[in-house]
Amino acid sequence: MNKMNIAVIGTGRMGSVHVRNLVRKIPEANLVAICDIRLEVAQALAEELGIPRVVADYHELLADPSITAVLIATSTDTHWFIVRDAAQAGKHIFCEKPLALDLPSIDVALAAVDAAGVKLQVGFNRRFDPAFRRVHDLVASGAIGRPCILHIISRDPEPPSVEYARASGGMYLDMTIHDFDMARFQVGEVDEVYAMGSVLVAPWLAEAGDVDTDVVTLRFANGALGVIDNSRQAVYGYDQRLEVFCSAGTAQAENEAVDTVVVGDRSGYHAALPPRFFMQRYPETYVNEVREFIACVQEDRTPSVTGRDGRLSVVLGYAALKSYRENRPVKLSEIAAL
Amino acid sequence: MNKMNIAVIGTGRMGSVHVRNLVRKIPEANLVAICDIRLEVAQALAEELGIPRVVADYHELLADPSITAVLIATSTDTHWFIVRDAAQAGKHIFCEKPLALDLPSIDVALAAVDAAGVKLQVGFNRRFDPAFRRVHDLVASGAIGRPCILHIISRDPEPPSVEYARASGGMYLDMTIHDFDMARFQVGEVDEVYAMGSVLVAPWLAEAGDVDTDVVTLRFANGALGVIDNSRQAVYGYDQRLEVFCSAGTAQAENEAVDTVVVGDRSGYHAALPPRFFMQRYPETYVNEVREFIACVQEDRTPSVTGRDGRLSVVLGYAALKSYRENRPVKLSEIAAL
Amino acid sequence: MNKMNIAVIGTGRMGSVHVRNLVRKIPEANLVAICDIRLEVAQALAEELGIPRVVADYHELLADPSITAVLIATSTDTHWFIVRDAAQAGKHIFCEKPLALDLPSIDVALAAVDAAGVKLQVGFNRRFDPAFRRVHDLVASGAIGRPCILHIISRDPEPPSVEYARASGGMYLDMTIHDFDMARFQVGEVDEVYAMGSVLVAPWLAEAGDVDTDVVTLRFANGALGVIDNSRQAVYGYDQRLEVFCSAGTAQAENEAVDTVVVGDRSGYHAALPPRFFMQRYPETYVNEVREFIACVQEDRTPSVTGRDGRLSVVLGYAALKSYRENRPVKLSEIAAL
Amino acid sequence: MNKMNIAVIGTGRMGSVHVRNLVRKIPEANLVAICDIRLEVAQALAEELGIPRVVADYHELLADPSITAVLIATSTDTHWFIVRDAAQAGKHIFCEKPLALDLPSIDVALAAVDAAGVKLQVGFNRRFDPAFRRVHDLVASGAIGRPCILHIISRDPEPPSVEYARASGGMYLDMTIHDFDMARFQVGEVDEVYAMGSVLVAPWLAEAGDVDTDVVTLRFANGALGVIDNSRQAVYGYDQRLEVFCSAGTAQAENEAVDTVVVGDRSGYHAALPPRFFMQRYPETYVNEVREFIACVQEDRTPSVTGRDGRLSVVLGYAALKSYRENRPVKLSEIAAL
Repeated sequence: MNKMNIAVIGTGRMGSVHVRNLVRKIPEANLVAICDIRLEVAQALAEELGIPRVVADYHELLADPSITAVLIATSTDTHWFIVRDAAQAGKHIFCEKPLALDLPSIDVALAAVDAAGVKLQVGFNRRFDPAFRRVHDLVASGAIGRPCILHIISRDPEPPSVEYARASGGMYLDMTIHDFDMARFQVGEVDEVYAMGSVLVAPWLAEAGDVDTDVVTLRFANGALGVIDNSRQAVYGYDQRLEVFCSAGTAQAENEAVDTVVVGDRSGYHAALPPRFFMQRYPETYVNEVREFIACVQEDRTPSVTGRDGRLSVVLGYAALKSYRENRPVKLSEIAAL
Repeated sequence: MNKMNIAVIGTGRMGSVHVRNLVRKIPEANLVAICDIRLEVAQALAEELGIPRVVADYHELLADPSITAVLIATSTDTHWFIVRDAAQAGKHIFCEKPLALDLPSIDVALAAVDAAGVKLQVGFNRRFDPAFRRVHDLVASGAIGRPCILHIISRDPEPPSVEYARASGGMYLDMTIHDFDMARFQVGEVDEVYAMGSVLVAPWLAEAGDVDTDVVTLRFANGALGVIDNSRQAVYGYDQRLEVFCSAGTAQAENEAVDTVVVGDRSGYHAALPPRFFMQRYPETYVNEVREFIACVQEDRTPSVTGRDGRLSVVLGYAALKSYRENRPVKLSEIAAL
Repeated sequence: MNKMNIAVIGTGRMGSVHVRNLVRKIPEANLVAICDIRLEVAQALAEELGIPRVVADYHELLADPSITAVLIATSTDTHWFIVRDAAQAGKHIFCEKPLALDLPSIDVALAAVDAAGVKLQVGFNRRFDPAFRRVHDLVASGAIGRPCILHIISRDPEPPSVEYARASGGMYLDMTIHDFDMARFQVGEVDEVYAMGSVLVAPWLAEAGDVDTDVVTLRFANGALGVIDNSRQAVYGYDQRLEVFCSAGTAQAENEAVDTVVVGDRSGYHAALPPRFFMQRYPETYVNEVREFIACVQEDRTPSVTGRDGRLSVVLGYAALKSYRENRPVKLSEIAAL
Repeated sequence: MNKMNIAVIGTGRMGSVHVRNLVRKIPEANLVAICDIRLEVAQALAEELGIPRVVADYHELLADPSITAVLIATSTDTHWFIVRDAAQAGKHIFCEKPLALDLPSIDVALAAVDAAGVKLQVGFNRRFDPAFRRVHDLVASGAIGRPCILHIISRDPEPPSVEYARASGGMYLDMTIHDFDMARFQVGEVDEVYAMGSVLVAPWLAEAGDVDTDVVTLRFANGALGVIDNSRQAVYGYDQRLEVFCSAGTAQAENEAVDTVVVGDRSGYHAALPPRFFMQRYPETYVNEVREFIACVQEDRTPSVTGRDGRLSVVLGYAALKSYRENRPVKLSEIAAL
């Protein structure tokens, strides 16, 4: 097997997850260097895992011809120009989502990728969850007919702070964005969205103009209808379910549970809750997505989550926000050329 | 126990269900007469069950002072004037849903009921399903916090004919109407609806201007959000589920299954489907609702499904239809005074 | 349809269940008379349900040539001679289980039935449970291979009094006897049993020489192995499950639940318990078994639960009791000729 | 944190699992050396994982004073003397199960451990499964009363070869032995066993005097009753369930599933099977058990799976074998002093 030389830019929360996976679980990768502007953070990680090279300036890595690809996990506002620079340096790119929170920046980055002809994969990891993928494959096979109704339930266990809400772009761009990508993955292109939102559990979010509960409906180009529901506070855990109801059957991905114990007593049968955090719910997706990226580079295939997918999830986020603010259905074409 | 003298008007599909229940399962009722304009239908039923009196004209029953209450299960277009006549005759009334398909007729009927001071209960039987009621009671108790998101899934196994669709008032008024009542039962008053619809499985319904798949979102007066999804074709059976997601927990009513057998083989674990028809899914609700009606008469209580509830479900149906046609959220106050 | 004239002898707990079913749910039966030595009990029931004839002495019914069949639901100690007398009178017979608590009496009854050539069905109602029957049919079809291991879990919610234990013949003959019949129904003839028992929850049963917890293993003639477990105290309800594990798959009948509600909160997901009493768990079996009996008489077929089945369940009970007392496996042939 | 210096002896199937876990998932261990008589096997593994030292003769490791503990994962017949030698060298010991297939060898090993005063943990990994442990903890807490009936279902997906069966000591000592340990873990000491066995799916095993299906009942010292059922061929996967039924409730550990997808179509609802192999079912148990061992050494605690536990599982295996051969219940005291 030819190992691919890769470097990771950004070694914070998500970056360090990718670094550990690359070292321990992805034998086809050769992690040659890591980079963080907080050099000491990257150094500590490199030491722990035996990574040979650490830099503070990502340009050093882009200048190194032995590096085939970079994985970008820096803060969101820097994604677009690191993608652009990496593309111009001829590196293949795996970039955490979102590509940017504004469409012009995304368009700059994607233009550079196109011009350079490098591969770009965006980190919509949930597409690599085995259950969601099995639903997708079954639906795509046509075995249960055509999709009619999509349901996505996606609820966090605890609401964020007002500071987080302000920085994140709000619920539609921070949280629902994952579900927009999942909706497109399961059923196809979206034409129009209608978004409702409410502040019901975290009144401090109202100050930021944000909501804590939303229901977004989708009209797909193929005629199917969709619903996403989100909440910032599911006290019983991280609730992640979906159903693709089709003309000849239905496929549901239910919640995982922390264990399989069922206790029966006078008051009922009691079963375990879902995992409480996304890293416990989706750990293998972070491995799977990077392995697919490496395979796409090595086999010269287009990644299954492209720059266009990254851009469309943001378009959907802005359409939902506009719909919420104007209380009317909004076509994606109102937001941007598609 | 004082038995209550009751007569049934209309002995077709639903009427004969009520007649059998009254004879076999409701000991506190004394079924003294049944009525059908097709006299021979009523006579055959009376003979089978030993019912003493059969008439073709319901006015005869209204004139009989020994009859305390009537149960109306005639065709929908006759409900409103039989209710009016029964009220004017001083009878307490149980009437199948909907009260009428137009609001002016409903208003005439309700005015007569008000003027006479008789009890009126409308046949929204699903409120009497033990599972839905337990969810309601739990949510109403406040034990799991305030309602945030309501989901209702309600799908029929097979699409109707175009003739049926034309006569029924269409999907929103024929099918979603049950779910509108359930939504109000579970969460409270609705302010605004947004309805999407599609023809995906039964192209003949397009000729009638009807849809076979719909997703309707609801904005409740208390800030909660709701979603109803309906399909005319769930090949795996009659799919009837709901979830009331609240700020301190969630309550779900799952599908019933025809049996509890699970078979495991090389291809998976295989479990039984839900019942295929509404009479198999909800048989006890038809008994429970009539028992409650009788108790309300005997104890001089207001029934838990009133004429106002019957009227509001129709208002919601028209709001959904308007929303669907104009592709915009519609406030209930646009349809009628509330 | 030709209705069959039937009379019920014994109108206590089980007898009155059969009487109500015959009147309300079995249109192919014509219940012409009921009989109870406590005449007033039978009279009250007859009046409520409009049954034309009531007697205190069952011989009167046996002498009536218009009666085709009798259903015997008297106290256990009288079953054997009423069966004998009914057979000698040429009546077809449905008899509640057990036929008797001693084998010689059973043999007298069965000899009379054989001599008269009448039909005899014994009331092992659980064979008529839709879930257990579907498991049986699937296993019998061979679709999941040959049976290897049978598990039956059968637990009552609350222990009986010491008086009941004394009169009933003890746990193996009173409670496990149902499971012995189910074991033979699902897998076939039994060769040998080994029974363990313990007093763990109801110390008063030790005074009667009885146990409250038992585990009985079965060696079937076809090589399959079986386990029955029983308890007198399942605080969470009436626990009735079975699994037939086969060489090419497994079939399980899980518990029913009183409703399908699932509540999630910080402490877990909470689901409903099974029904608490056998009449709530198995109501339709009592209808189904009598309908099959009537069909067997009308179509001149052998009932699916014969006198031999009734006898073998008692043989198994005695084998288990002997095994428990001697703490060793006991062959059925040690108890009686088979 | 003080890392503990440990060496692994035996780098075959199980040994290499432990080696990988020690390197990747157990930061409190410092894996200083590995050993295998097939030196090249150990060398390849060391190279892949960056392990500094490789030897072919375990005595070299025992002589190294810098090594605190050894993990023994060699072939079963060598366990007892490596344990003895390691104990005499003053090393703490983690040894894969079983300690030996004969009791005298086990007694030699345990005597050496006692004399040296070192810690010994035996690799009954299933005790470290989160679900089984939660059941254990709940039962041990007394929250659901006293244990009455234990059920363990433990079925392999595919039967082994006759060679394997011959070498393994047969089903009771190779497969049921895990369940004997689990039974003691959940409910306590066993007094007596009765074992049935059959050859139903793998006729070649009869040649080795072995069975492919067994049911073993257990009488516990505290009066509780137990059942273990095993099969060599569960075509639907690796079936691992248990229930501890108690006087005030019941605790069940259900099967895990490979994913949470449920598909509904005209034929039923279809859910995923359990994992097919033990390494997919129990991966974290192999990490958890070694972490507990290290903690016990570092904190000078007695491991939760002792040499005595290892010995008693073998005693139970021989008791079951004797019971099967003589078709009678066998007391453990017939096999060995306890």
